[in-house]
Amino acid sequence: MIDIALFGAGRIGKIHAENLVRQAGVRLKYVVDMHVPSAQALAQIYGAKVTDVEGALGDPSVGAVVIASSTNTHADLIISAANAGKAVFCEKPVDLTVERSRESAAAVARNGVTCMIGFQRRFDPTFAALKARIERGEIGDPEMLIITSRDPGAPPVDYIKSSGGIFKDMLIHDLDVFRWILGDEAQTLHATGSCLTDPAVQDAGDIDSTAVTIRTERGLLCQINTSRRAAYGYDQRFEVLGSKGMLQAGNVRPTEVTGWSANAVSVDVPEPFFLERYRQAYAAEMAHFVEALTTGTPVRTTIDDGVKALELAQLATLSWQRKGETLQVMSEGGA
Amino acid sequence: MIDIALFGAGRIGKIHAENLVRQAGVRLKYVVDMHVPSAQALAQIYGAKVTDVEGALGDPSVGAVVIASSTNTHADLIISAANAGKAVFCEKPVDLTVERSRESAAAVARNGVTCMIGFQRRFDPTFAALKARIERGEIGDPEMLIITSRDPGAPPVDYIKSSGGIFKDMLIHDLDVFRWILGDEAQTLHATGSCLTDPAVQDAGDIDSTAVTIRTERGLLCQINTSRRAAYGYDQRFEVLGSKGMLQAGNVRPTEVTGWSANAVSVDVPEPFFLERYRQAYAAEMAHFVEALTTGTPVRTTIDDGVKALELAQLATLSWQRKGETLQVMSEGGA
Amino acid sequence: MIDIALFGAGRIGKIHAENLVRQAGVRLKYVVDMHVPSAQALAQIYGAKVTDVEGALGDPSVGAVVIASSTNTHADLIISAANAGKAVFCEKPVDLTVERSRESAAAVARNGVTCMIGFQRRFDPTFAALKARIERGEIGDPEMLIITSRDPGAPPVDYIKSSGGIFKDMLIHDLDVFRWILGDEAQTLHATGSCLTDPAVQDAGDIDSTAVTIRTERGLLCQINTSRRAAYGYDQRFEVLGSKGMLQAGNVRPTEVTGWSANAVSVDVPEPFFLERYRQAYAAEMAHFVEALTTGTPVRTTIDDGVKALELAQLATLSWQRKGETLQVMSEGGA
Amino acid sequence: MIDIALFGAGRIGKIHAENLVRQAGVRLKYVVDMHVPSAQALAQIYGAKVTDVEGALGDPSVGAVVIASSTNTHADLIISAANAGKAVFCEKPVDLTVERSRESAAAVARNGVTCMIGFQRRFDPTFAALKARIERGEIGDPEMLIITSRDPGAPPVDYIKSSGGIFKDMLIHDLDVFRWILGDEAQTLHATGSCLTDPAVQDAGDIDSTAVTIRTERGLLCQINTSRRAAYGYDQRFEVLGSKGMLQAGNVRPTEVTGWSANAVSVDVPEPFFLERYRQAYAAEMAHFVEALTTGTPVRTTIDDGVKALELAQLATLSWQRKGETLQVMSEGGA
Repeated sequence: MIDIALFGAGRIGKIHAENLVRQAGVRLKYVVDMHVPSAQALAQIYGAKVTDVEGALGDPSVGAVVIASSTNTHADLIISAANAGKAVFCEKPVDLTVERSRESAAAVARNGVTCMIGFQRRFDPTFAALKARIERGEIGDPEMLIITSRDPGAPPVDYIKSSGGIFKDMLIHDLDVFRWILGDEAQTLHATGSCLTDPAVQDAGDIDSTAVTIRTERGLLCQINTSRRAAYGYDQRFEVLGSKGMLQAGNVRPTEVTGWSANAVSVDVPEPFFLERYRQAYAAEMAHFVEALTTGTPVRTTIDDGVKALELAQLATLSWQRKGETLQVMSEGGA
Repeated sequence: MIDIALFGAGRIGKIHAENLVRQAGVRLKYVVDMHVPSAQALAQIYGAKVTDVEGALGDPSVGAVVIASSTNTHADLIISAANAGKAVFCEKPVDLTVERSRESAAAVARNGVTCMIGFQRRFDPTFAALKARIERGEIGDPEMLIITSRDPGAPPVDYIKSSGGIFKDMLIHDLDVFRWILGDEAQTLHATGSCLTDPAVQDAGDIDSTAVTIRTERGLLCQINTSRRAAYGYDQRFEVLGSKGMLQAGNVRPTEVTGWSANAVSVDVPEPFFLERYRQAYAAEMAHFVEALTTGTPVRTTIDDGVKALELAQLATLSWQRKGETLQVMSEGGA
Repeated sequence: MIDIALFGAGRIGKIHAENLVRQAGVRLKYVVDMHVPSAQALAQIYGAKVTDVEGALGDPSVGAVVIASSTNTHADLIISAANAGKAVFCEKPVDLTVERSRESAAAVARNGVTCMIGFQRRFDPTFAALKARIERGEIGDPEMLIITSRDPGAPPVDYIKSSGGIFKDMLIHDLDVFRWILGDEAQTLHATGSCLTDPAVQDAGDIDSTAVTIRTERGLLCQINTSRRAAYGYDQRFEVLGSKGMLQAGNVRPTEVTGWSANAVSVDVPEPFFLERYRQAYAAEMAHFVEALTTGTPVRTTIDDGVKALELAQLATLSWQRKGETLQVMSEGGA
Repeated sequence: MIDIALFGAGRIGKIHAENLVRQAGVRLKYVVDMHVPSAQALAQIYGAKVTDVEGALGDPSVGAVVIASSTNTHADLIISAANAGKAVFCEKPVDLTVERSRESAAAVARNGVTCMIGFQRRFDPTFAALKARIERGEIGDPEMLIITSRDPGAPPVDYIKSSGGIFKDMLIHDLDVFRWILGDEAQTLHATGSCLTDPAVQDAGDIDSTAVTIRTERGLLCQINTSRRAAYGYDQRFEVLGSKGMLQAGNVRPTEVTGWSANAVSVDVPEPFFLERYRQAYAAEMAHFVEALTTGTPVRTTIDDGVKALELAQLATLSWQRKGETLQVMSEGGA
């Protein structure tokens, strides 16, 4: 039985707790949150204890930590946990800076601990099935990847101000999907964008609509289009053109009802947002983490994946800031 | 060059004229209609002459007639044309009575002329492709056929009064599709129905909603559901379950636009009614008729098909009148 | 905290146990199964005890029982549990005979206990959403219901021999859906069928393919087509035509991947069978049962629903045996 | 009655001839083709005469010309016809050079003649319906346009060598669709691409896979992905995200058959190539041209549209050649 400490008792922390306790071989021992009442409430549901970071990392029975606290705490917690010899599951992003992300990765490497980054999309049944079909050769050699990634609406401007910008906050997932699906690394990257939904976003120094193009080392092409606002819900699709065909990953609908009226034949809009859309993915990624812990097998989304996605997000930010300058990805992955 | 006389210059007559003149090897020589101005207007477009029945059938240069006049004239015209040695294309139904239909078929047989009945659905690209795929063995042995056939709205009650009832007027097409798709003959038939859309239909002695079940000689099952009113347009679908799979024929949409709004993801409603839905089918059936004329090959929808569909429609009417009594199809096909 | 005893530790018993223990306010206290090792295995997972029927019903702390044992034990257990004052959840069917079902219902009524029958389809998100949309008036007055219900393959003939026949075993769900969706009672019923998939089914005195037509007291029409074998998986669809439109409930697919090859554009086949297709429904029905227990609200699928569905299944069996005789539904619901 | 001369009796010339002769108010008087037997064969079908350019342009009865000859003849013929006072319909592109295109446009302007460029996609029922729905405000303000445009397979390398490159040959249509759908002009353009299907394309100095990003004057974003090869057929889709929703234009299928097998639920692949896909569009554009001629109304796709699309194609070529340099669109539209 592996004891686990959970950092962060907010929305995503609750989801991880719920999925953790379903797994055989692990026990949620501690909940840590700066806001103690939140920690207490969550701990009580699952019979866990409330403690602080030192208490959790100092307990030798704790074999792993799950980091679901705010982004600015991720790197410190990864490094501390790694130094304490704990296995780590950490929500994306590793950090908002490439430098600090690399330091975190170095700490993980130095201590030889397992560290999984929460790129849950790789565990979505639809996305994972598509990837498996590519690997079985169904579409031959992948050539182009088109990713559509749109949120149902912009978050509060205060959130945007501390988000690191749309590329690090929102596209980091898409940039990881790009690397995973094409199985290749970016060679050049071009990004542009606009503020189209709300001038307040622009005032905060950010944009809400982006168009990114990546050309990989093997010459494959990837286009990513994103928006903070899709009036019809959370839009998460991609398609891969290969030499022998194409595979598309579509949205998930709450029900399979089709309505026929005088005006239209219609089906449900997609699931409203990521908590609903990726519910199965969150469960599957935690099962994967626990399985890695209990069997000693490697995790599929490593801290290096987290660093690489951040490097690309950083590069995209720079390309946009330089008015669409096409940037080379450095051999070490930075701009 | 085969000269052709067209009887009937109404809505369906115009469509047949337009499709006829596109075919190589034939010429529209005469248009005949009790309402002479209609005949004149249509004749003028295509450089044809206006005449009467005797004029058309008495002209030895006329090799074929196309009968698109009112239903009560069909049998007389078929018999007269057959006796005059002309090939015949006649709109469904052959007649509203089984007896008169059989007399027409006898006249055709006696004179050895070609006679094609306008079951245009067999020439629809979707329906024809489905049939071809059954014949290629794609779904193994057909077992069940489910036909959905709904009009966009009831016709005027005056039309209904002289229509022969819903089974002869509307289901005759579906009963032909049943024979064609399953390639088997009915052994027992059960029909029920209701008047649900407009009490005036009931006052006219008819119903507007029916449910028919047929069991064939080989034990295959067919269910047909029909309504005079589908608020969303003309609904023409069927599906065939076979031992190895299923094939469905779906509706045809005017465009391939999909709209995503806050409430729904929607596509176009089906084509509004039969003239739009079966536009390609009307063209293809006339091309088939002319090809049969010019090459001497047999037609695919014979007057015997017309008689058999009418026999089933007559049987369905009787089953409904007898409150759902299951009726045996006689060896000669009658009730 | 309400203690619950579960009868039956087989496939469906395990599902109910898993869903039960997730609910607040209840505890799985006992597992009962003639095959004691099965009971022990299941009890161990959830910290429950193994006992026998008398032990479970004799424990005053037990407030409710969940009956998931073989069909021939249902009526006895319902009656015993009701007489012991326990609330009851029982898998369909109540019994294979109408008489015994009515006795069970009488015992429930006499003791004033809650009794829910496991018509889980009413709790499926797609089916429930469709029903709610009818009730909101989206399609006006319902007129016709077309149910397609096909299993992926016939069960072993030994199962069929003791199943009560296809109408009681398979269509009982569809007959409940019919009553629920149209909100009306059958007035006449017609059934026919064939043995098309395996002669062994016929040798066992049963059929594998059926076509049922029901006309309700208000004149609404319902057609049900079923087969024991759909090569493409478990096919569970229905559609309701109303005066203002139509609603369709479609199949559920494992993923939303679309593949485009040289030959076809294709999506996943439906979920393979009922355990996968109705996974959410099984969870929701158990949550509903527990909510009824803990709040004292009535259950939505009563034992009377169970009796009525069985009466219709019995009537369908009779209609088929009488070669498609259309039968009247008696005022008390029997044939 | 307006007499028309057709230049070019090849594949596309035949389509224009067939559509022309269906229109009221015009007559196909001349067919001109360097390959005289082709001209004769086509002329004979429609009762036209064979002549040469001088003969056609020198006949005062000729009111309009349709240019469907090879690309390198377009500019000369437009200028000559304009100078002769004839109305002009010309296939895209106007020319392979921006300079010569502008000279052609100048000749048209100087002579005040009507000149329509064959951007047939604007006349496709699906694309036109989508545009109309944008204009009705259904999705609010357009923000992003994603165009997918893939040919079923690369043409012979000899064709590619004289095609002007993929941007002028293939994307010119997409660049026109971009301007038409968003109703805005490009401000910056970025293009990249690869040769992924056949090294011979690279040897010819071209690429077969491209990714173009345009940012408009109002800040709207457009991404275009193209490939010379889609194994599943001719793939022509686009989608427009707006402030209130999204509209997608999908592919057109030959039939509406859905097949359900043990492995997949599948529909037809798209129409194989442009002649089938845009059949209705070719007919509609010619009807539009003739209507403009006979009523004096302006044409919807002018030679200026032709010049602007070519300027963008030229810019895209340059951006690609400069390894993805983001280029500004000059005020006069050039690079």
